[in-house]
Amino acid sequence: MTTRIVELRRGILKKNDELAAELRERFTRAGVLVLNLVSSPGTGKTAFLELTLRRLTQAGAKAAALVGDLETDNDARRLAASGAPVRQINTHGICHLDAEMIGRHLDDWAGVELERLDYLFIENVGNLVCPSSYDLGEKVRVVLLSVTEGEDKPLKYPTLFNSADAAAITKIDIAGPCGFDRELALHNINEIRPGIRIFETSAKSGAGLDEWLAYLAEQRKVLKG
Amino acid sequence: MTTRIVELRRGILKKNDELAAELRERFTRAGVLVLNLVSSPGTGKTAFLELTLRRLTQAGAKAAALVGDLETDNDARRLAASGAPVRQINTHGICHLDAEMIGRHLDDWAGVELERLDYLFIENVGNLVCPSSYDLGEKVRVVLLSVTEGEDKPLKYPTLFNSADAAAITKIDIAGPCGFDRELALHNINEIRPGIRIFETSAKSGAGLDEWLAYLAEQRKVLKG
Repeated sequence: MTTRIVELRRGILKKNDELAAELRERFTRAGVLVLNLVSSPGTGKTAFLELTLRRLTQAGAKAAALVGDLETDNDARRLAASGAPVRQINTHGICHLDAEMIGRHLDDWAGVELERLDYLFIENVGNLVCPSSYDLGEKVRVVLLSVTEGEDKPLKYPTLFNSADAAAITKIDIAGPCGFDRELALHNINEIRPGIRIFETSAKSGAGLDEWLAYLAEQRKVLKG
Repeated sequence: MTTRIVELRRGILKKNDELAAELRERFTRAGVLVLNLVSSPGTGKTAFLELTLRRLTQAGAKAAALVGDLETDNDARRLAASGAPVRQINTHGICHLDAEMIGRHLDDWAGVELERLDYLFIENVGNLVCPSSYDLGEKVRVVLLSVTEGEDKPLKYPTLFNSADAAAITKIDIAGPCGFDRELALHNINEIRPGIRIFETSAKSGAGLDEWLAYLAEQRKVLKG
């Protein structure tokens, strides 16, 4: 049975890679920077994204978000407060988003045209394992890690950290009460993904947001050539 | 391809259920209470378990632990400080433990005999999705949720919360700085799993541990009939 599973899994991932490659081409043609946000449940992806959307919108950029969860549209409702267009994807038990879900939800998203967007954020299902193998056609994969989670998460979930292009440490406003060891966390992230760009952020205080927004603008410039 | 996957998945889960039923019988015959601890990465399963093992060992009970992670033996090393026998299971990319892994690691665990144990704890891989479908032969499934993760996790990951027999809220010592809404969290857990026993704990202050240990003793009494 194991052989059949491995073969099937390979088939699924190959199909996903093909769809993701098509999406990536489509995103590039449209000139939209697409980011895939991955983390454990409760890391604060939604709060981080809400602030990002709000700041981008205030600055006159056009940003939108697709947000994945097993159930509920809580996150889409929270994010909509930013003023940006947001659409919820419910996976109903599946532990990650895939390229097909992204394509399908983009195709019939009333009022949103990729060509008119500067940034599209995809907030993945909260999971440090499953999303690592599923390319969504994104340009930048961002892994988030909160100060509450323990500094060893990169070592324990190396596949996801290794596949990321940038990392954001979240909730640094409560680093003190959590006994967060900053040096150790930075060391562990760099051990799994040497030289990765790391942002130290708080959605509560706004710390690190300027650096993060500058990075986004930079990445978008690279995209546009 | 979807039909084939569903069939294969059903086959895998059926096989796992059979192995888990055998394990459950074996645990009952040996008179050992087996608990399966599930949560998001970073909820504090290891700190909670370390304190539990330490307190049980101090009270003269015989407890042991199997601990699952994708990579590293960090958790086994941390737990070993409690004095209890601990064995690490590395899943190498798989997002949950399964009954076969448990059986295999029990069979050649040097120096540990089930018949001599009062409690066996299984710390699952940090994941709020995948472990829900995999019965490990446990008597009690405990879902942990930290005050840092957001009160809506039960609604967003209903399958896991619905399959649990008990819930532990962890890190209540930092509930204040995290802005944790206790009433809302209790309400949401009860909405998904009405009447479930809930412990409010801190591995730092020891809060809630007496109630939790009393519950363990109670469950063991039920087991021994």
